[in-house]
Amino acid sequence: MSTETEIRELIAAFDAALNNKDVETLLQDYNEEIVLFDVGTQIKGKEKYKELWSACFPYFEDKIGSERKQMKIYVNDNLAFMHCYSRLSGMKSDDPVTKSWLRVTVCYQKVDGAWKVVHEHASFPADCESGKVSYVFDKDLEE
Amino acid sequence: MSTETEIRELIAAFDAALNNKDVETLLQDYNEEIVLFDVGTQIKGKEKYKELWSACFPYFEDKIGSERKQMKIYVNDNLAFMHCYSRLSGMKSDDPVTKSWLRVTVCYQKVDGAWKVVHEHASFPADCESGKVSYVFDKDLEE
Repeated sequence: MSTETEIRELIAAFDAALNNKDVETLLQDYNEEIVLFDVGTQIKGKEKYKELWSACFPYFEDKIGSERKQMKIYVNDNLAFMHCYSRLSGMKSDDPVTKSWLRVTVCYQKVDGAWKVVHEHASFPADCESGKVSYVFDKDLEE
Repeated sequence: MSTETEIRELIAAFDAALNNKDVETLLQDYNEEIVLFDVGTQIKGKEKYKELWSACFPYFEDKIGSERKQMKIYVNDNLAFMHCYSRLSGMKSDDPVTKSWLRVTVCYQKVDGAWKVVHEHASFPADCESGKVSYVFDKDLEE
């Protein structure tokens, strides 16, 4: 039986690579066929996800910080999933979006002894009546 | 080892209950402590999720239809997850939101022989520059 520690190590490695804007290391544990429901779009495939991150990096200063809150991990021998609130720091803009928490779900499968992310879902909530994004500030997160 | 069929049966039961606006049956396979990242908000607990659905039902005609596309299910003995695009029909309004696909991720845990949804994430993509929701129409879904 795998442990939560294995998944926590993947997340820590992701955050460290993000800090360095190192897209190859960032996505080293992602499956080639990843199905991504990202904040702004939905794509299939690790190569496209690399392009997405690379296009995103110029909006940040040299280092990107990553905070996570209310993380919960489920894991057994070859499947795992995690959900949390996530917030990046180091954006050049001071738009409200930079203060908002994202909702993040990551799903893993272990194949040939190695965990890979097979699906990721990141989003802001939406106000369907106004058609506007609802940002999630500290006060909005119930403990 | 559990099978994909077990998860497909849960989804079919959910869609059937949705069709009848039967909130008790709809959430019968949801864990009491469900963490929900829903389209418009984020909540914890099955009771609050019931309230959310009940508040949503009046926007629909008597019957609610459910379509799902590009569904993928991962399952082993006691964990499972599914992602798909989902669209409900039967809304009284003809707003663009009613034509859009939602991105949906559902995570399951089997406890004492019964599958329960422990986490669900449903969202529309967001255009962070304009602060507006981006709807997902048929033409936007790559096969």
